[in-house]
Amino acid sequence: MHVLITGAAGMLGRKLTRRLVDVGTLRGSPIDRMDLIDIVETPTEDSICFACVADLCEPGVAEDLLKPVPDVVFHLAGVVSGEAEANFDKGVAVNIDGTRALFDALRFAEGIPRVVFTSSIAVFGAPLPDPIPDDFHLTPLTSYGTQKMVAEALLADYSRRGFFDGIGIRLPTISVRPGSPNAAASGFFSDIIREPLAGAPAVLPVSREVRHSHASPRTAVGYMVHAAELDGAIVGARRNLTMPGVSVTVGEQIEALARVAGPDAMALITESPDPTIGKIVAGWPERFDTRRALNLGFVPDRSYDDIIRAYIEDDLAPV
Amino acid sequence: MHVLITGAAGMLGRKLTRRLVDVGTLRGSPIDRMDLIDIVETPTEDSICFACVADLCEPGVAEDLLKPVPDVVFHLAGVVSGEAEANFDKGVAVNIDGTRALFDALRFAEGIPRVVFTSSIAVFGAPLPDPIPDDFHLTPLTSYGTQKMVAEALLADYSRRGFFDGIGIRLPTISVRPGSPNAAASGFFSDIIREPLAGAPAVLPVSREVRHSHASPRTAVGYMVHAAELDGAIVGARRNLTMPGVSVTVGEQIEALARVAGPDAMALITESPDPTIGKIVAGWPERFDTRRALNLGFVPDRSYDDIIRAYIEDDLAPV
Repeated sequence: MHVLITGAAGMLGRKLTRRLVDVGTLRGSPIDRMDLIDIVETPTEDSICFACVADLCEPGVAEDLLKPVPDVVFHLAGVVSGEAEANFDKGVAVNIDGTRALFDALRFAEGIPRVVFTSSIAVFGAPLPDPIPDDFHLTPLTSYGTQKMVAEALLADYSRRGFFDGIGIRLPTISVRPGSPNAAASGFFSDIIREPLAGAPAVLPVSREVRHSHASPRTAVGYMVHAAELDGAIVGARRNLTMPGVSVTVGEQIEALARVAGPDAMALITESPDPTIGKIVAGWPERFDTRRALNLGFVPDRSYDDIIRAYIEDDLAPV
Repeated sequence: MHVLITGAAGMLGRKLTRRLVDVGTLRGSPIDRMDLIDIVETPTEDSICFACVADLCEPGVAEDLLKPVPDVVFHLAGVVSGEAEANFDKGVAVNIDGTRALFDALRFAEGIPRVVFTSSIAVFGAPLPDPIPDDFHLTPLTSYGTQKMVAEALLADYSRRGFFDGIGIRLPTISVRPGSPNAAASGFFSDIIREPLAGAPAVLPVSREVRHSHASPRTAVGYMVHAAELDGAIVGARRNLTMPGVSVTVGEQIEALARVAGPDAMALITESPDPTIGKIVAGWPERFDTRRALNLGFVPDRSYDDIIRAYIEDDLAPV
């Protein structure tokens, strides 16, 4: 089993790598090689992992990466929402053209590898029903969401034509994100948990009534692995799936923080409404009915309390 | 009022040109110039029309076409369904990259022109509800439908960002198509009416129970003009609209033919099932609930009898 991960140096890429190394198998076969691709250095010490600094947007790079052709490709590389909105050309170049370069290289490579593509619930924008059903149309209100929608469409068609065997998974907002904030406008959803847990203050830029859908990094990695192992025949022609999330208000997030870490943590959060962030967030989806993914065996977090505990176990405790 | 039409030499392009020349105004202003663009010669004798052979896929062509910048662009150019399925690279090059070249040129052009883009109900593929609501997700089962979906997504985002002011209209199958068949797999829907009306035999490759949604070329041109004149503020962020069609079975089409042209015409149709066409058609949508378009003032044909009469008046009688 030969695995390739793009965007391997990112938070989810590193967690996915660690999970695969720990488990040691994928699709029932021992993993004997993992290629870790990113535009920055991916630190790795494991003997089956080969890190490579490469940019899919450069001509010929995607073709080179597929020698030999992996059995499973996790395509995580991408420009995040805030950056894709601020730098339109970069977002298009990476999220559309870089993805196309990879897809086209796979088209001409030997075999029909499974491709797991991480899309996003940013393909949905308000007004939205509550909950959003699996067959609701894609209505992105950001360039990031648009670019993910385009990649989803291509993934489905390339899979239909047998160029590769793709599964797109629309991840909810990932929280609690470890480390420093990235350029995503959704950063505060994690900041208000992570910073108080470290004894640091956090700013809440939106109302406590804001409702949103979350998955822990641990669960998101579980979704990726499950997507790699799914039987494509059961999935059928509709290759892009909305992943389950825990739908909570910001207020409920904070209550969960108080339950897990005590009232002192909660007191470190200061409300300071930011109309710009508030407007962006108002266009985001709140809750999904993801029965397709659930029927296909994707296993969500059980509660926001569990999401906080997963962060403490996976990211805070080891430090 | 300066208008530009891509794909102007095609059947709908020529009919749109004639309509605009006859009406003489668009968005309340007299039309003083029409640029007719196609990869083949566009015959024109009208003094306000300037035909130009140009391929949007070639570098710099789109930029050149926008000097000066038109007030309204009708983007009809595209590779049709059968060809896009048979020649994947050509479909992508024309339907995605050619469209992107035009959109990107518009992005950097002065002003914010209205862009009317002709999409297709091929963005929908089975299994589908009956009727298909306006908020049903796009599920193309062809590369053509996928490419239209991608162009729709870009049109909405480019419009949201203010690069231009786009409206995408998903046309139902156009019947009765005059002239010779094109490479579209849907050709028989027109053949079985047009050929008998000319006293010629026609082959029906699918069952009479097959249900499909139709618009006459006259009505499709009306949709385009109405899309050019719509108030974008009323349309909102969701820039792609399914156009109303007359939903009939093939059997009902044939009954309409008998009513309009007599039983002799009907007798010229021979049933000869073609499993390949039958399989393609089985994935197509049958009926839509297009209340958004109807509320926005798009006016459909009233019946399939009217569609046949429009063909006789517009295409058969003048010959």
